[in-house]
Amino acid sequence: MDRKQISDTYQAIQEDFCDALETLDGRSSFRTDVWERPGGGGGVTRIMSGSGPVEKAAVNFSAVEGDTPDRLSEQLAADSSHFVATGVSIIVHPANPHAPTFHANIRYFETDSGHAWFGGGADLTPSYLYEEDARDFHSSLKAICDRHRVGDYSAWKSACDDYFYLPHRGEARGIGGIFFDHLTERPEEVWSFQSDLGDSLGDIYFPIMRRRIDMAYGDREREWQEVRRGRYAEFNLVWDRGTRFGLETAGRTESILASLPPQARWIYSYEPQSLTPEATLVELIRGPPRSWAEQAG
Amino acid sequence: MDRKQISDTYQAIQEDFCDALETLDGRSSFRTDVWERPGGGGGVTRIMSGSGPVEKAAVNFSAVEGDTPDRLSEQLAADSSHFVATGVSIIVHPANPHAPTFHANIRYFETDSGHAWFGGGADLTPSYLYEEDARDFHSSLKAICDRHRVGDYSAWKSACDDYFYLPHRGEARGIGGIFFDHLTERPEEVWSFQSDLGDSLGDIYFPIMRRRIDMAYGDREREWQEVRRGRYAEFNLVWDRGTRFGLETAGRTESILASLPPQARWIYSYEPQSLTPEATLVELIRGPPRSWAEQAG
Repeated sequence: MDRKQISDTYQAIQEDFCDALETLDGRSSFRTDVWERPGGGGGVTRIMSGSGPVEKAAVNFSAVEGDTPDRLSEQLAADSSHFVATGVSIIVHPANPHAPTFHANIRYFETDSGHAWFGGGADLTPSYLYEEDARDFHSSLKAICDRHRVGDYSAWKSACDDYFYLPHRGEARGIGGIFFDHLTERPEEVWSFQSDLGDSLGDIYFPIMRRRIDMAYGDREREWQEVRRGRYAEFNLVWDRGTRFGLETAGRTESILASLPPQARWIYSYEPQSLTPEATLVELIRGPPRSWAEQAG
Repeated sequence: MDRKQISDTYQAIQEDFCDALETLDGRSSFRTDVWERPGGGGGVTRIMSGSGPVEKAAVNFSAVEGDTPDRLSEQLAADSSHFVATGVSIIVHPANPHAPTFHANIRYFETDSGHAWFGGGADLTPSYLYEEDARDFHSSLKAICDRHRVGDYSAWKSACDDYFYLPHRGEARGIGGIFFDHLTERPEEVWSFQSDLGDSLGDIYFPIMRRRIDMAYGDREREWQEVRRGRYAEFNLVWDRGTRFGLETAGRTESILASLPPQARWIYSYEPQSLTPEATLVELIRGPPRSWAEQAG
């Protein structure tokens, strides 16, 4: 694969998503931090933080390379001395508790031991369940997967449910999406799928966000959102492989932890009252994963 | 050692500390949750959460036993089938940003492979540096260590600086204290030291807390406190061995994570302005560990 083409495309996806999110927000702009990695390569971290519909967003591009960390060689079970990794990751924490948090990531990895693969995914984390949002989100992802021979919505939906899970809480992080990793076969087709996904992320998320950001809310909804954001922080700091790998291998901390929510709250043994919208969300994330895309048709 | 005597003493320390903290707070009471561990033993989790000087406090006693987890056998490098662990841990998050967060823990561990040891410590995490507080805290700890032949303030002060450190931030969590672990020699003397420490925790912390809880503060101090609490959550979730061990071995999540701050905030690349009290704290925790007890005499 042409690494330059891949990382150029990732940068274009970053730019397009940021432009579109600024338009949607209407108030705040992204700040841009260009950084270099001491061991090789670097990145562009773009952060929006304001008083509009987007409370905090982080859209990160990176293209790093260098000596393969020991940990990685162990995971690959292969002698590799040099690696290249490039990717773009997106996280949007809306201010309105009715609007779900959105996360997506696409990435490409290559080592001089001949390993190369694509990975990525997109998932949604609501504080309040709107079935329409879950159906639309999953149906959009399924449609993209179905456009490509290498796409496997069903397997990647399950992988997403498995990955974004907090075992210590017995809870899913949200309503899932798709998650794929180590795609090594048919790289040209995978690349075509992945760029299609990258170009579609705004089209998937923004309509959902738009119909929630003007809904009324008060202290109760905001508190609940902060409790859910506490769970989001727990997942990222305790279980997320990318976050932990980054922190343990001295990655750029501010870029890695830009995914954390703007605010979080921890209340001991907090359980919402039954028959409330908060309880509906909890029942969902503590139950078996649901099918969403099928229900749309 | 007499395990019953140890765990009874731990329970008494828990009760005394809670009673004294309720008196100091003057508004809120501890709730008490008694729980059983499926594999053996259980605990008593006591939580205070209110609108008085103590925003959140967790004082946990546990005495668990059962089959030795594989991970533990690996760490011990010994075949052990049964273990007993008992301890009490204390965390106080005051509402006032000028009052430091306090943490302490004392514990005893025993396996049927003949391993037995004591561990524990006490440390302080201010959002604003008051040198008087740091000196008093360390001097009190040094005085307790000096009362016992097995006490080694200097080594345990260094161990505490090493342990409560966030490598991904290049920051200490706070101003340290003492940290000791795997004390196997002279168990009777260690036990005498440890109970002395446990009985003294209130005397060490409460005078510091009392002189801070009526200080004036506003949004600026509160925001800074929440940023610092974000770091506290990062340390506990990413690096703290006890927290990670508990979460990965299906401990009681609500008790383990009761240490987390009531609220936390993450602001991208936040740096306080130079020559402010916030900058003074940051300079301290990013610099080499300071000696505090020596300066007191």
